[in-house]
Amino acid sequence: MFDKYAFVKDDMKKIDDFLLSNIKTSSPTIKKAVEDLVLSGGKRVRPLLVIAIARLGEYNEDKIIPIAASIEIMHMATLVHDDIIDDSKMRRGRESVQSKYGKETAVFTGDFLFSQAFNVIADIISKENLKLIARGVKAICEGEIEQFDNRYNLDISVLRYLKRIYRKTALLFAISCESGATQAGLSKELTRAMRRFGLNVGMAFQIADDILDYEGVEKIVGKPLGSDVLNGIYTLPLIYALSTSHKKAIEDILLKNKLSKKDVNRIVKEVKLSGGIDFAKDLALKYVKKAIKFLDIIPDCEQKDLMIDIANDALKRNY
Amino acid sequence: MFDKYAFVKDDMKKIDDFLLSNIKTSSPTIKKAVEDLVLSGGKRVRPLLVIAIARLGEYNEDKIIPIAASIEIMHMATLVHDDIIDDSKMRRGRESVQSKYGKETAVFTGDFLFSQAFNVIADIISKENLKLIARGVKAICEGEIEQFDNRYNLDISVLRYLKRIYRKTALLFAISCESGATQAGLSKELTRAMRRFGLNVGMAFQIADDILDYEGVEKIVGKPLGSDVLNGIYTLPLIYALSTSHKKAIEDILLKNKLSKKDVNRIVKEVKLSGGIDFAKDLALKYVKKAIKFLDIIPDCEQKDLMIDIANDALKRNY
Repeated sequence: MFDKYAFVKDDMKKIDDFLLSNIKTSSPTIKKAVEDLVLSGGKRVRPLLVIAIARLGEYNEDKIIPIAASIEIMHMATLVHDDIIDDSKMRRGRESVQSKYGKETAVFTGDFLFSQAFNVIADIISKENLKLIARGVKAICEGEIEQFDNRYNLDISVLRYLKRIYRKTALLFAISCESGATQAGLSKELTRAMRRFGLNVGMAFQIADDILDYEGVEKIVGKPLGSDVLNGIYTLPLIYALSTSHKKAIEDILLKNKLSKKDVNRIVKEVKLSGGIDFAKDLALKYVKKAIKFLDIIPDCEQKDLMIDIANDALKRNY
Repeated sequence: MFDKYAFVKDDMKKIDDFLLSNIKTSSPTIKKAVEDLVLSGGKRVRPLLVIAIARLGEYNEDKIIPIAASIEIMHMATLVHDDIIDDSKMRRGRESVQSKYGKETAVFTGDFLFSQAFNVIADIISKENLKLIARGVKAICEGEIEQFDNRYNLDISVLRYLKRIYRKTALLFAISCESGATQAGLSKELTRAMRRFGLNVGMAFQIADDILDYEGVEKIVGKPLGSDVLNGIYTLPLIYALSTSHKKAIEDILLKNKLSKKDVNRIVKEVKLSGGIDFAKDLALKYVKKAIKFLDIIPDCEQKDLMIDIANDALKRNY
């Protein structure tokens, strides 16, 4: 995907090698589950950001690859646990851990990945960076639980939604950028700009992800359209729609006891008609533009081009 | 329970205060769940071991309390996740997180606790100790998954069982002792003895816990007798029984498609008759004696008495 950048292909291979060789475990089940996760790919956006930004400063591969890989491990752990909650059958085009090995294995594979990630980075990165990454994971948990607590809540505001996705997604993007910057010894000003770049890309990323529930390609997304709605998770397109004249039509359906497939399709249609998807796309685009603006501070270079590509790619998500 | 030791009551209060004041979260749900966990008590055996051993050397409260508390946090996190898998309604005499708040909240409350624990200890303890604790958590996950993978496996050997409980339980006991020892600057020889003490206590602890499935008081244990058997988890008393003339009677029941309450009671009875419980109790006692032997290296003192008490208490578990 981002292979046109000279360093990307090499570095991504190093990350994969690091992931595969550092998941040392006596458990054949964990080993298989983690190999599945690594080999199923994903775009590795977070580690790519760590590396691209670290390459703006004093690049020390022996530290950067483990940091980048560990952030990916933590991210994978949250995905594995997320799939338990959503009861997702698929992840990145493959069967999810919880579907293939059961919820029990998924719970402890996620925990294994968390502890392994901390184990790996403990003597490589600074304590500040370690705390930073731990805080990122903590925020993801808070965001996920806030989302769960607010299922079926029709009064959810755009602001609350934005706070949620900040925790669930954007903060770990910001932390990826920040830890790459601090590790490479970038100036405070640059580090702050990189962090903000990550934050805004992360926001766009999650909004784009939420739009997929309304217009994704089921086969690629891996779950039926309207799954979020069905599970009471109301995201930006729907939240916007509830502020329009479509409110009553949508509420009438949502207040039913049990939604049929037809009900869900009806809601998706109402949301589209309300302009909710366009509103969400516009907001995602604004975040991307804001993100790219923070790159003004760095001179034109390959890394900058890659970061701009990653930012723009957030809008094209279909996975 | 161990309140007769002058320092215990004070230190335990400090641990509880530390737990409550360091679980800073924007999520009211997490806050409530964690408060439930802390206030429900438990004997805090692991933190007690950290503290007792650290008090043999250069005792630095500002480091020891956070280490001890963090190990308890990690332990709590594994309990919360464990209850998801066992579908347990009760934990330490209170409703479990998964029963009270749902599996979704339980998954992310556990993850929150893991990340929070690493966050708290990152700038307090040495990298060696941090890696040690991460390794302890990793081993627990491996032990749990191995146990799950071997459900309904009638060929399980005593050795495999012992390896499993080493990972699931004993290693974190050993690590609790070791991190107390290294933090307090004890000699290598002493540190090794303390680690071995912990390992053996942990083995006894888990064997005693497994015996409860056969002769615990349901109301205190919080789940029906024979729950492990019903879930295909075969522990020492049963594994022993399968090596006796009771093998056929037990296998005939276990090979049935679905076990009734009566079937489970029948197995519990056969295990008792086979001497499986006595065998397990004897082995637990051996581990306790072996553990206490490792304390010969330290002079008589209050801490030593407490450690002997903790070791002996493993055999009296009824919770």
